[in-house]
Amino acid sequence: MPGTGIIAMDKKILLGHGSGGKLSQTLIRELFFKWFTNPVLNTQTDSAVLSAEAPHLAFTTDAFVVDPIFFPGGNIGKLSVAGTINDLAVSGATPAYLTASFIIEEGFPFTELEKIVSSMAQEAKEAGVQIVAGDTKIVNRGKCDKLFITTSGVGWIGEPFLSVSTGKNVQPGDRIIINGPVGDHGMAVLAARELTHFSTDIRSDCACLNHIIQRVKVTCPEVRFMRDATRGGLATVLTELAENRPFGVEVDESAIPVSEATRGLCELLGFDPLYVANEGKFIAVVPLSESDSVLSAMKDHPLGVQSAVIGQIVEHHAGHVWMNTSIGGKRMLDMLAGEQLPRIC
Amino acid sequence: MPGTGIIAMDKKILLGHGSGGKLSQTLIRELFFKWFTNPVLNTQTDSAVLSAEAPHLAFTTDAFVVDPIFFPGGNIGKLSVAGTINDLAVSGATPAYLTASFIIEEGFPFTELEKIVSSMAQEAKEAGVQIVAGDTKIVNRGKCDKLFITTSGVGWIGEPFLSVSTGKNVQPGDRIIINGPVGDHGMAVLAARELTHFSTDIRSDCACLNHIIQRVKVTCPEVRFMRDATRGGLATVLTELAENRPFGVEVDESAIPVSEATRGLCELLGFDPLYVANEGKFIAVVPLSESDSVLSAMKDHPLGVQSAVIGQIVEHHAGHVWMNTSIGGKRMLDMLAGEQLPRIC
Repeated sequence: MPGTGIIAMDKKILLGHGSGGKLSQTLIRELFFKWFTNPVLNTQTDSAVLSAEAPHLAFTTDAFVVDPIFFPGGNIGKLSVAGTINDLAVSGATPAYLTASFIIEEGFPFTELEKIVSSMAQEAKEAGVQIVAGDTKIVNRGKCDKLFITTSGVGWIGEPFLSVSTGKNVQPGDRIIINGPVGDHGMAVLAARELTHFSTDIRSDCACLNHIIQRVKVTCPEVRFMRDATRGGLATVLTELAENRPFGVEVDESAIPVSEATRGLCELLGFDPLYVANEGKFIAVVPLSESDSVLSAMKDHPLGVQSAVIGQIVEHHAGHVWMNTSIGGKRMLDMLAGEQLPRIC
Repeated sequence: MPGTGIIAMDKKILLGHGSGGKLSQTLIRELFFKWFTNPVLNTQTDSAVLSAEAPHLAFTTDAFVVDPIFFPGGNIGKLSVAGTINDLAVSGATPAYLTASFIIEEGFPFTELEKIVSSMAQEAKEAGVQIVAGDTKIVNRGKCDKLFITTSGVGWIGEPFLSVSTGKNVQPGDRIIINGPVGDHGMAVLAARELTHFSTDIRSDCACLNHIIQRVKVTCPEVRFMRDATRGGLATVLTELAENRPFGVEVDESAIPVSEATRGLCELLGFDPLYVANEGKFIAVVPLSESDSVLSAMKDHPLGVQSAVIGQIVEHHAGHVWMNTSIGGKRMLDMLAGEQLPRIC
C-alpha cells in the first residue's frame, strides 16, 4: 500500500485510531476507503443516504467473533460479508447495501487488518453489494480478542418473495433441497483452532449465496422457504422450519451430503455433522412439481454442484422433524440444548 | 421477570446462550423478545421484512464499547440506541428501524443484561423506533470486556432534507446553533471510570435527538447541515464542516455553553471541553433569516433549553475554523491528532 500517511506496513493499531480525530481519519481513508470505495461511502456522512429500489426491504445484522480470525477457506472479514448477505438472500431479498462495524484490540497488526478488509471488499464486489457505512472502535489490549466485526445489511424484496422468510406457504408434499455437504465450516474452524498438529483437508464453505439463490428465485418464483444453515447446523434449521407448524418434516440421512473428511473428523470427536455450522449452505423448500428444475438449476451453479433433495414436508408428526437413518431406523431431530462449538462464527 | 425458563434472576450468561440451540432460544425469547417485542421482530426470521416509507433512506451503524457500561445519565444500551438514532436524525432522516448485535462475555450477570436491554427498549419507544432484528454472540471469559453492542439503523428521508448530511448548501452568513452545553458525556464517563473517589454532579447528556431535530426541520425546511458532536467533540464537528469547503467557520468561545461542573473538571485534568465527547448534542447550520425561529423552537424542547447561536459561516479562511476566545484573542481549531479519552462511547 502507499505508505503516504501515518499508517505504514509494519504499524499496529493504536488507541488513537479510534479517537475520532486525525489518526481515525487516516485509518478510515488509507484502509477502509481504499478498499470499500464507492460514492455513497465516500461522502463520509453520519448515515449513508440511499435510494429505495422496491416497496419492501429486508434488514438484518450479525456479529462475528470467530476464533481463529483466519481459517482454511476464509477469514472473519469474508465471513462477516457472506453471513449478512446470506441472511438477506434467504429472506427472498436482493442484497444491496452493507454496513460494517469493527471492534479492534490495540496493537492489532495493520497488515492483518488490511488482509481482512480487502477480502471483505472482494466478497462484496463479487456479490454485487456496496459497503456504505461503517464504524471503528479500538479497545485497550486484552479487552477484546483481536477483532470483532458486526455487519448489517439492507436488501430489496419483490412482491412474490415476501413470504419466503416466514415460510407461511409451506405445505405437505413440498421438497427440501440443500446446496451441498454440511458441517465443513464448523470443523474447519475447530481444526484450525484446536487441532493445529492434525492435518486435514477440510475447508470452510464460507461463500455468498445470493447468486445461486437468485437462480432458485428465477426458476421457481413459488419457492416457499429458504434459510441458511449456520450456527446449530442443518438440524436446527429443520427444527425451526417445523416448530409450531401444522406439518412435519421428514429427511433421509443417506441423502444429506457430508464430505468424507468432515464425516471422519466428526466421528473421531463425537460431533454430529447435522448440528455443525455451515457458512455457505442453505435449504430451499419448493413445490414437488418444481423440485427437479430447482435441483438442476442449483447443480448448474458452482456453489451447488452437490445439491440434493434431502426430504419433504409431511402431514404427520406436525411440529417435528424425523430422520430416516442410514441403517433403516427413525430418529427425531431436536435443537441442541447447549453449545457444541463456541466461536465458530 | 417470570422465571419460567432456563434463565432465572441470579443466572449468568453461558457460552451455550450463543449456540443457536435451545439456550439461545431461551435468551432470545425471555429477554430480547420480552423487551423489544413488535410484530416484525417476533417473526424471528433471518432478516426483518419492512415496508419502504419514502424513496430515500438513511442507513448507519455504530459499535459501542463504553467503559464503564453503567455511568451517570445512562448505560451502554441507552447509548447504543441514542447514538444510532442521532446519526440518522442529523442526516435529515426520520429514524424508523434499528438492529442490535450483542457480544457478551461468558459469565456476565443476566440481571445487568436485562437492565441494559430494558433501557434500550425504553429509549427506542420514546424515540418512536422499532428494534426489528438482532444477534447475540457469547465469547469465553476474558475474551471481551463484559459487553459490546453494535446498533444499525434505517430511516426515511424526505426530498427537502437530502442534502442535510453533506451540507452542500451551507453558505457564508449561515448561523451555527447548538442545543446545549458540551463535554458532559465524556467527563461523566471518565469520572465514573477513573475518579471513583471523586464526587461530581456531571451526568452524561446521552439522549435521542430525533424529536428536537424534527422541530428544527419543521421550523426550517431549509436547514443546511446537522451533525451530532460525539467522539472528538464540538471542535471535530466544526473542523469536518469546514474541511475542503470554500468557506470558513467562526465561533465565539463565550457563546459555547459548558456546564460549571464540566468546565471545572476539564480545567483540573487539562482537557478542552470542545474536544470532549457528547451523546446528546448536535449543531444545526441554518440561514441567518431563520436562526431566531430555529433557536426559539429548540429552546422550547426539553433537550434544547440551553440552545445557543455559537457562530457563523464566513467567506474568509476557507476550510478552517477560527474561534474568538473569551479573552479577546483568536485561535484556530483543528482535529485532535490522537486519543484524548478512550472508550467513551
